[in-house]
Amino acid sequence: MNCLEERIVKDGIVKEGNVLKVDSFLNHQMDIELFDRMGAEFKARFAEKPINKILTIEASGIGIACVVAQHFHVPVVFAKKSKSINLEGEMLVAEVESFTHKCSNRVIVAKKFLGPDDHVLIIDDFLANGCALQGLIQIVQSAGATVEGIGIAIEKGFQAGGRMIRNLGFQLESLAIVESMDARTGEIVFREQ
Amino acid sequence: MNCLEERIVKDGIVKEGNVLKVDSFLNHQMDIELFDRMGAEFKARFAEKPINKILTIEASGIGIACVVAQHFHVPVVFAKKSKSINLEGEMLVAEVESFTHKCSNRVIVAKKFLGPDDHVLIIDDFLANGCALQGLIQIVQSAGATVEGIGIAIEKGFQAGGRMIRNLGFQLESLAIVESMDARTGEIVFREQ
Repeated sequence: MNCLEERIVKDGIVKEGNVLKVDSFLNHQMDIELFDRMGAEFKARFAEKPINKILTIEASGIGIACVVAQHFHVPVVFAKKSKSINLEGEMLVAEVESFTHKCSNRVIVAKKFLGPDDHVLIIDDFLANGCALQGLIQIVQSAGATVEGIGIAIEKGFQAGGRMIRNLGFQLESLAIVESMDARTGEIVFREQ
Repeated sequence: MNCLEERIVKDGIVKEGNVLKVDSFLNHQMDIELFDRMGAEFKARFAEKPINKILTIEASGIGIACVVAQHFHVPVVFAKKSKSINLEGEMLVAEVESFTHKCSNRVIVAKKFLGPDDHVLIIDDFLANGCALQGLIQIVQSAGATVEGIGIAIEKGFQAGGRMIRNLGFQLESLAIVESMDARTGEIVFREQ
């Protein structure tokens, strides 16, 4: 097990409905030293890629992306989920719709921060059905930039997002892929990598 | 001028209505190496304080807070602006109302992440009228924790927030305090520190 899987086993809480709560170290309270180790692991997995920018999405992706970025020495851009009053000028917008209302999102990045010269690593905390991620990929491609890879902290391997993204040919690296969880026993099974 | 003031002069854009756009390096695209230098400066200014946690607020405070936290070797908690589906259990909530509808906010932190043993450094990107900051201070105090200091990237010195917070006795350190801006000429005047 890597450091993130160990931490999930130690501090993650499995709830009914396939909910994995990791808010004590990943997406509400954040363990920055864990993020730093995750950054080193992403750097190793994407060592060959000419990454010059990291793209993430508010809010819980931002902290991980910023610490990971220190291993790549590149700036981070975070996509916003709705039109903000301070976003002006031309924008890249992806409308991501889903049958689950939990992930109907408008994903927005100012056009000036992504262009044909950009080689992008997308970073996010969770991947389940992949709605947010599809919006980010769409935005990178509409800017004429290149998706060099996708780094996820925790992937729910029993949902469709990861398979779909890999089938599209992207290098998707998830540090922990949960194959199954049992809310009754608290047991979490990870995919062997 | 310090590194942040220099960067504001170089890349900040003054707009009508006292708007300072710093989205190319601070709150949409983020220059992580700049954040790292800001972290070193905050560490120097709060060197004597027994800080064991950093508190910030989504979304644009998170990146700065996470990089600053590496200088303090402490975890970061970010407050959420509205009730999220994954926040359960007891919560600390501050209702922050204002006559400008732009900053009517509900600020929320799970109770388990702030308690009487916590000595908190609050970090945010902007301070203008101080609405969000008042909510964060209220949350720290309602948890029985101690506000050891407040670190802000850019303070609009011509608005009331900074004076009010300092008058309450808090150590508020803003790396750049804008005294005045001229949208016509683009000139920015900083307060001497």
